[in-house]
Amino acid sequence: MPSQRPRIAITLGDPSGVGPEIVARAWSDARMQSAGELFAIGPPAILRKAVDLVGCGFEVVEIADAAELDAHPGTILCLPVGTDLGGEIPRPHSADGGRVAYDSVRLATKLALDGAVSAIVTAPLSKAALHAAGYNYPGHTELLAELCGVSDFAMMLYLPPGVANASPHGLGVVHVTLHTALRTVSDALSVNGVIEKIALAHRALVELGCSRPRIGVCAFNPHAGEGGLFGDEEIRIIAPAVVASDEGGYAASGPYPADTLMLRASQGDFDAVVAMYHDQGHIALKLLAMHQSVNVTLGLPIVRTSVAHGTAYDRAWQGVAEHTGMVAAVQTAAAIATHRYP
Amino acid sequence: MPSQRPRIAITLGDPSGVGPEIVARAWSDARMQSAGELFAIGPPAILRKAVDLVGCGFEVVEIADAAELDAHPGTILCLPVGTDLGGEIPRPHSADGGRVAYDSVRLATKLALDGAVSAIVTAPLSKAALHAAGYNYPGHTELLAELCGVSDFAMMLYLPPGVANASPHGLGVVHVTLHTALRTVSDALSVNGVIEKIALAHRALVELGCSRPRIGVCAFNPHAGEGGLFGDEEIRIIAPAVVASDEGGYAASGPYPADTLMLRASQGDFDAVVAMYHDQGHIALKLLAMHQSVNVTLGLPIVRTSVAHGTAYDRAWQGVAEHTGMVAAVQTAAAIATHRYP
Repeated sequence: MPSQRPRIAITLGDPSGVGPEIVARAWSDARMQSAGELFAIGPPAILRKAVDLVGCGFEVVEIADAAELDAHPGTILCLPVGTDLGGEIPRPHSADGGRVAYDSVRLATKLALDGAVSAIVTAPLSKAALHAAGYNYPGHTELLAELCGVSDFAMMLYLPPGVANASPHGLGVVHVTLHTALRTVSDALSVNGVIEKIALAHRALVELGCSRPRIGVCAFNPHAGEGGLFGDEEIRIIAPAVVASDEGGYAASGPYPADTLMLRASQGDFDAVVAMYHDQGHIALKLLAMHQSVNVTLGLPIVRTSVAHGTAYDRAWQGVAEHTGMVAAVQTAAAIATHRYP
Repeated sequence: MPSQRPRIAITLGDPSGVGPEIVARAWSDARMQSAGELFAIGPPAILRKAVDLVGCGFEVVEIADAAELDAHPGTILCLPVGTDLGGEIPRPHSADGGRVAYDSVRLATKLALDGAVSAIVTAPLSKAALHAAGYNYPGHTELLAELCGVSDFAMMLYLPPGVANASPHGLGVVHVTLHTALRTVSDALSVNGVIEKIALAHRALVELGCSRPRIGVCAFNPHAGEGGLFGDEEIRIIAPAVVASDEGGYAASGPYPADTLMLRASQGDFDAVVAMYHDQGHIALKLLAMHQSVNVTLGLPIVRTSVAHGTAYDRAWQGVAEHTGMVAAVQTAAAIATHRYP
């Protein structure tokens, strides 16, 4: 048991999306409360609206700073961000929504870098709304990397233990490239890049309790290129990276054809998979467990998780959004923080 | 009810792979027998070994020609191919195995083109063994297209109704490109190519009993390119093809981000999906139902289905291979043949 429970900041994300309501609903889940000392970051008036919408009955109590965590049962502590929106929910894709989402992530990241919290969990934001607010990032992951000043990072989608996978420590899928045009991925792959992602996958699973993660590395081409018949990225890049990683002490193997590797991983043959591009990992994980997979950013100096879905503007503020991903994201953040800061 | 039951030729595939044993085991499945008048194509001595291995008790009766279909209960009629191998199982990847597999497909295709059978179902072959035998094809699909003299064809992976999908007529995933290096796929995509595959998907689902197939078209890039931010194949190629297909009377929509489209399709929102490249379709279908998905070649003048897995040399001749895919392939071939030749 850790000497103290992890302190976790949870952003509400884009106020026009499903973030506020999944945070409100997750708060009444017993697994959330046992994960750590929690507080929300975002406009308190928006969170109150979400609490009313889902009928969870919590009182939203505004706090002035993250040190002030004297939570009482029945309350959600909420640290406001600069823009409070006057309690009005902005239109989807709006600059107002983007600004609140950006300010919340920046504040949460600062608190984590300062050591005021041991992990941050973020609700979805919209890239279009970020752009409308003048912040040009392809996604949350790249924004966090910049705020933390790191260049070696990766997005991992993670299925917690017991969720649609047979590995006792869950299954992580780490992406070598992410928000990149698929036609440019081949040129973006390098031996060192793949080695680095294998190392990130290894460290992530160790932090999730797996002492020697078995890492399966995806091929890039169909049938792993069939011995060079259609594509040579396996021969030039991926196989040498796997060999070097294996010699470096990681339990890495591959490259395997991605279609069978994803199936084998879901059956428990691997603890982590390294995917070469966004959809290679995302198609599999969304099919396996859309609402229970967790997005974990690797390579940051802070612990950060998120739900794996987006703002879902079209379903937001109707009280129908599924909150289990938020619970899983908080539990995963708590597990990593407990390991990293024992 | 059709006036007569479809006559279906089933190849044993590469004799070193799992083909012979899955054919033998499938033969004792009641759903096979009700599908049509069946016979096998391959070396009878190999099929006898497989019957002994799985203990299904059938007598293998050699026939001289496909007209001679006077099957008795308890027998498997088998039309031999040129090479009989003396009943010896060749080594994996051998020229002997490749030659038998090739000869079987060629004979089956000829019978179908001549109208002697109304459908063919093929067991797995190995590209490496084909190459060793001097036949250079990237796969079964391309070999069949050449034997039939067609250039507009596609591979569809098909989940029959009730198998891991909610569509009443099953779910088909049609591939625009197949055995192609992924870095060359972008250049291989064209508006007309995508339109053609949408049309093939439509016709295939109609033949499987769906009067107005809802066709979801995959994007190529992550997040469907996020409005051109990372990749423009959606804007240049896929969206125009979808619009043209929709105006042409097909119920096509998209392009959708592939990760969410595959999930929605499995939940019943679509009857067919058009995927831009091999793994985009295969990752999803293998996860959903590796052993029950069926490979259907579209665009041929004959009806051809296959199991969706490979030779599985490492598990062959141990009596452990799963035969449900072969049963599904035969049922699917029978359904299409019954529709096409009423």
